[in-house]
Amino acid sequence: MSDRALELAKNIKLLVLDVDGVLTDGGLYYGDNGLAMKRFNVQDGLGIKLAQAVGLEIGVISGLDQKPVANRVNELGIKHYYAGKHKKVPLLKEICEKVGVELSEAAFMGDDWIDIAPMRSAGMALAVPNGQPEVVEIADWVSTRSGGEGAVREAIGFILKARGLLDEAMKEWAG
Amino acid sequence: MSDRALELAKNIKLLVLDVDGVLTDGGLYYGDNGLAMKRFNVQDGLGIKLAQAVGLEIGVISGLDQKPVANRVNELGIKHYYAGKHKKVPLLKEICEKVGVELSEAAFMGDDWIDIAPMRSAGMALAVPNGQPEVVEIADWVSTRSGGEGAVREAIGFILKARGLLDEAMKEWAG
Amino acid sequence: MSDRALELAKNIKLLVLDVDGVLTDGGLYYGDNGLAMKRFNVQDGLGIKLAQAVGLEIGVISGLDQKPVANRVNELGIKHYYAGKHKKVPLLKEICEKVGVELSEAAFMGDDWIDIAPMRSAGMALAVPNGQPEVVEIADWVSTRSGGEGAVREAIGFILKARGLLDEAMKEWAG
Amino acid sequence: MSDRALELAKNIKLLVLDVDGVLTDGGLYYGDNGLAMKRFNVQDGLGIKLAQAVGLEIGVISGLDQKPVANRVNELGIKHYYAGKHKKVPLLKEICEKVGVELSEAAFMGDDWIDIAPMRSAGMALAVPNGQPEVVEIADWVSTRSGGEGAVREAIGFILKARGLLDEAMKEWAG
Repeated sequence: MSDRALELAKNIKLLVLDVDGVLTDGGLYYGDNGLAMKRFNVQDGLGIKLAQAVGLEIGVISGLDQKPVANRVNELGIKHYYAGKHKKVPLLKEICEKVGVELSEAAFMGDDWIDIAPMRSAGMALAVPNGQPEVVEIADWVSTRSGGEGAVREAIGFILKARGLLDEAMKEWAG
Repeated sequence: MSDRALELAKNIKLLVLDVDGVLTDGGLYYGDNGLAMKRFNVQDGLGIKLAQAVGLEIGVISGLDQKPVANRVNELGIKHYYAGKHKKVPLLKEICEKVGVELSEAAFMGDDWIDIAPMRSAGMALAVPNGQPEVVEIADWVSTRSGGEGAVREAIGFILKARGLLDEAMKEWAG
Repeated sequence: MSDRALELAKNIKLLVLDVDGVLTDGGLYYGDNGLAMKRFNVQDGLGIKLAQAVGLEIGVISGLDQKPVANRVNELGIKHYYAGKHKKVPLLKEICEKVGVELSEAAFMGDDWIDIAPMRSAGMALAVPNGQPEVVEIADWVSTRSGGEGAVREAIGFILKARGLLDEAMKEWAG
Repeated sequence: MSDRALELAKNIKLLVLDVDGVLTDGGLYYGDNGLAMKRFNVQDGLGIKLAQAVGLEIGVISGLDQKPVANRVNELGIKHYYAGKHKKVPLLKEICEKVGVELSEAAFMGDDWIDIAPMRSAGMALAVPNGQPEVVEIADWVSTRSGGEGAVREAIGFILKARGLLDEAMKEWAG
């Protein structure tokens, strides 16, 4: 898997992410008024910021439309965000057009069945180890860390390294 | 265990679930005003929706009666929900009657002692690995994932696969 | 350890518990107004109820005095609760007197240094595996499950089994 | 690593900590109004109190400026707290001056790239196992426990033991 994944990653200019189970640990915290909270990860956050800084575009497509996600996405400065959408392929294509890249230059990272179609459409399919078996099976690359535990940061690191952008990113943040 | 569990699962038309420790990780988040939150799982949610779509009925019986659970159950469109009930066997039977299936066609999934009686009454007894030892011991099938980490989704997948309904379910959601 | 622990457990009529790291996972959830929540465990809750039902008294002594704990303790019907106390030995003795048992008939379960003194004073010292090394080291018995993941339920099960009360407890709850 | 780390720890009089991923598990709980909560650890809290009591100064520098952290820091009586700062080296030096110690007598504990510079400047670099690989790689000492699970307490214990202060600390809290 590793060599082929590395080859694919060299072409990736856009990374589109599912939310629940990828940017979060899949937990849905319910209180007296319904959904109260979701748990995101701080290292993912820094990863998204540095990706955008060195030229890896980030998009987010969620099957659910929930305020906590919108808040997180806005804080991270992610411009391409679609919520409440089960059919993700048309939106993936829309983001590609806006960003000005080919589908083959986009990667999609998911954890559940509704992510299978966009994973198959994109140039590279990324999955989390806590994903459904059918999702993990079709992935070109699976992160070591679980969703919400830095899986997205790991994916960003993998792509930036393949593209030779990791040192530039590190210079700015770890200098 | 596996072969016998597969045979049993072929007949299951109704899956009744305990809540705490099965649909949640067993955590009870308390704040200044008492119980504030419970943590559910997004992959369980999709599993419950697709189960209902292809003809596996879902019921929920909880020993506690708490608003966060009612909110989650309603959002998932679960029609058969009983809360604050320690004696679960009569309610399991009531759900069977409403759905129009035999007890032998129902499975019950639990984690603690008050689930033992309905697990014994139902046609198939399912448990989570984080359940009490006495509960795990009498189960026909034990999920790999813990409660709140996709255990219910795994149970649904196992039953749908046994019944030959998994492909139909996948076509709709992963097509 | 096991044989000696079993002998000690046969005499235990009162179990006194620390809170953070024992009844919870040690997490302190802070929000804009300070401490917002703590995470308790549902299986511990059922264990405490059945212990009290069959004659194992439960007490709680916490180094902190916080509303979420008071709420949980009240809901579980625990009569002996002391909060905001770093010197736990005098309170352990006070509970023994109220309950009418000897110190040698009491067990104390803890996770951190301020629990060492009451653990040494009590007839039996219980610890969680996530406790500080010095605490785990002096324990007569260490649970398999971590604090907040059913450690207290496991301790109660161990004592009830040693005292021959487990079947009676199960009959009522799993009958 | 161990022998060299022990030698370095003998000189440490000030421990400066990153927050997210070190004092917390890296989780960012978002609700309808943005960041709602962070999860701290009770054993870290006791560790910080006893460190300050026996003469190991504690400082905190966070890349983010968020109310839940300020609340926790205040409750623990930490006087040296800087928030919303990505360039941590000047602040580390400022704390050293206020405390009256050399940079070589300070340790910095981090988990992500923006902690690399202060880790390199300080006399001793500490990391959590859940840190980014580049951070763990340059650390003189890596805790066994993860951030938010007692990593800071472990670091404090290591330094106090190296300095011969652990018994004094224990006498007060476990006496």
